[in-house]
Amino acid sequence: MAVYTEITDEEVQGFAREYDIGRVIACKGIAEGIENSNYLLVTEQGPFILTLYERRVRRDDLPFFIGLMEHLAQRGIPCPVPVRGRDGESLRHLAGRCAAIVTFLRGMWPKRPQPAHCQALGEALARLHLGGADFPMQRRNDLSVGGWRPLYEASAPHAGAVAPDLAAELTSELTILERRWPQHLPQGVIHADLFPDNVFFEGTQLSGLIDFYFACNDFLAYDIAVCVNAWCFENDGSFNITKARRLVSGYSAVRPLSPEELRLLPLLARGAAMRFLLTRLYDWLNTPKNALVTPKNPMEYLQKLRFHRGARGLGAYGLDALDAA
Amino acid sequence: MAVYTEITDEEVQGFAREYDIGRVIACKGIAEGIENSNYLLVTEQGPFILTLYERRVRRDDLPFFIGLMEHLAQRGIPCPVPVRGRDGESLRHLAGRCAAIVTFLRGMWPKRPQPAHCQALGEALARLHLGGADFPMQRRNDLSVGGWRPLYEASAPHAGAVAPDLAAELTSELTILERRWPQHLPQGVIHADLFPDNVFFEGTQLSGLIDFYFACNDFLAYDIAVCVNAWCFENDGSFNITKARRLVSGYSAVRPLSPEELRLLPLLARGAAMRFLLTRLYDWLNTPKNALVTPKNPMEYLQKLRFHRGARGLGAYGLDALDAA
Repeated sequence: MAVYTEITDEEVQGFAREYDIGRVIACKGIAEGIENSNYLLVTEQGPFILTLYERRVRRDDLPFFIGLMEHLAQRGIPCPVPVRGRDGESLRHLAGRCAAIVTFLRGMWPKRPQPAHCQALGEALARLHLGGADFPMQRRNDLSVGGWRPLYEASAPHAGAVAPDLAAELTSELTILERRWPQHLPQGVIHADLFPDNVFFEGTQLSGLIDFYFACNDFLAYDIAVCVNAWCFENDGSFNITKARRLVSGYSAVRPLSPEELRLLPLLARGAAMRFLLTRLYDWLNTPKNALVTPKNPMEYLQKLRFHRGARGLGAYGLDALDAA
Repeated sequence: MAVYTEITDEEVQGFAREYDIGRVIACKGIAEGIENSNYLLVTEQGPFILTLYERRVRRDDLPFFIGLMEHLAQRGIPCPVPVRGRDGESLRHLAGRCAAIVTFLRGMWPKRPQPAHCQALGEALARLHLGGADFPMQRRNDLSVGGWRPLYEASAPHAGAVAPDLAAELTSELTILERRWPQHLPQGVIHADLFPDNVFFEGTQLSGLIDFYFACNDFLAYDIAVCVNAWCFENDGSFNITKARRLVSGYSAVRPLSPEELRLLPLLARGAAMRFLLTRLYDWLNTPKNALVTPKNPMEYLQKLRFHRGARGLGAYGLDALDAA
C-alpha cells in the first residue's frame, strides 16, 4: 500500500482543469498499488483514478502502457481507459511526476479466489491476448529469462539471509531454465502481472483488469503461467488443480492453446515462479526498513518454484484431460 | 496510511444490504488515517466512507463518537453523518470489527495551510464547541494532564534513544505543567485532534471536519491550543504569528474567549505539545519495524514544547492585540 507523492488541492484543481471532467470534489490516496501513487479523484462527473508514476516506471514506457489500455478498451476489454485532456493528450505532468487520469472500474478484487473466478480470468486473459494482437507498439520483457541471471547476481551474495543454500538452489535452477526455455511459441502483448489484486469482479463476473505497467511482448502462454502461480496455489502452499483446470480451460475456450503451449505450461510456470522469486528477493534485500511498502516474502515463490520442479507432467496440474481434448 | 483489515466482496455486499444505500460498486482502502481502516465505498447512490474500528479505539467509546457526529451534523457542523441501517442502528459489525458507514465529505485537507485556512478553522472550531454544548454524553480526556505521567513513565527508560537528556527535560516539564494546569475554564465537547489532515477545504472554504475518535470533554480552549500547535508552526519549526492570530480571532468572532482563556492559551499549548510529544514518543519506541504505519517523529513536538517554554506572554503568539480588544 502506498501513496508516495502528496499533492495539494491547488495542484489537483489545476490539473483537472486541463480535462473535461468537471470540478474536483475530493481526491484521496488509495492504499492499494505498489509501484505508483494512486488517488481516487471524485469530480462532478463521478469517480476517476489519478495515477502519478513513480521512479520504478520508466517514462519511455508510458506511451506503450497508455496506448495499450486505450487499444484494449476500444476492443471491449474491461480495462481503465486513459482520459484525454482538452489538448488530446492523456499523459501529462503533476507534482513533478508523469501523471494520467483513467476511468474508474466497478468491482473488487477477490481476496479468496474461487474456481469460478479462475475460469473468468482465463477467458478474459485470452480476450486480452486476442485484443492486443494488432496493437502496433512493442515493449521487450526485461523480466523474462534473459533478465533473471543479472537479477540473481544482484541478490546472490545476501540470499543466504533468506534461506540457507538459496543461492546454490537458484543457480542450478537458473541453468536449467536457461537451457530449456522455449524459443518459439505464439507471442503477443501480455499483461505479465495479473495477480488477484489486478482483477476486479462483481460476484464471479469479471469487471476489470488493471495495472498494465508490466505489460510487454512475450509468449502468450507465459501470461497463463503467471496466473497459474498467482491464482492456483492455496495459502498453505498446496496446488489447487480445480482452479488450474478452470483457468486454462477458460482460456482455451476463447483462444485454443496449441499442444506445444500446453505441454510447455509447467516449464513456463516454473520460469514465472523464478521471475517473481527473483524480484521479491531483490526487494526483500534492498527495501529500507522505514519504507512505506512492506516487501513481499520471496519464500512464497520459492515454494512454488519447488512445486513446479517436482511436478511430473500435466497431470500434476490437473491439465492432462485438456491435453487429450 | 493504513488499511489493517482486508474485507471480501461478499462481506461488503452483505454489510451494505443492511442499509438503504444501494448496491456496492467498488470498495477501496484509503491510504490516509492512522487509527482505523477506512474504505471508500462507492454504491449506486454515490460515495460513502466505511470505517472499521481497530484495536486502539475502545468499543465502549464508539456510541459517544457516533452520537457526537450525528448531534453535530444536526446542528450544521460539516462532519461525517453516520448512516443508519434499516434497523436504525449505525454501529454494526464487519470482518470481526465494529464498523460504521458515514457520509462522504467534499474537499481536501490542506497540505500547506495558509492564514485564511487558519481563520476558517478557528470559526469552525468555535461552532463545533457551541454545537456540542447540549450533547448529552460524556467522555473523559484520558490524554489530558492526568494521563501524561503514566505515558511518560512507559517511555522514560528508552527516551535517551530519541534525544539525550530527554527524560530529564520531560520530567521537569511535567512537574511544571501538573503544578500550573488550570482547574476551572469553560468546558465542553472538544475534538482534541484537529490536525490539518482532519479538516477539508474547497479552496479556503472549510467543507468538513473528520475523525472524531479522540473527542472528549475538556477545556474548550485546550482544543484551540491543539490547533495552534498543529497549524501555526512552519516546516522549519518557526512560529507563524499571523496564522495564530487568524485562528484565534476567527474562533473569538464566533465564541468570544474569556480573558482567562486567552491568558492561559500559551500554557495550554505547552500542555498540548506535551500530550502529542508523549504519544508520539511512545509510538516511536513501541512500533514494530515492519508495521504498516510509520510512526511520527516525536522531535517535532519537542521543538514545539521548547518554543512554548521560551515564549514570553501573548506577544510571542501575536495575540497581545486580541487581549486588549
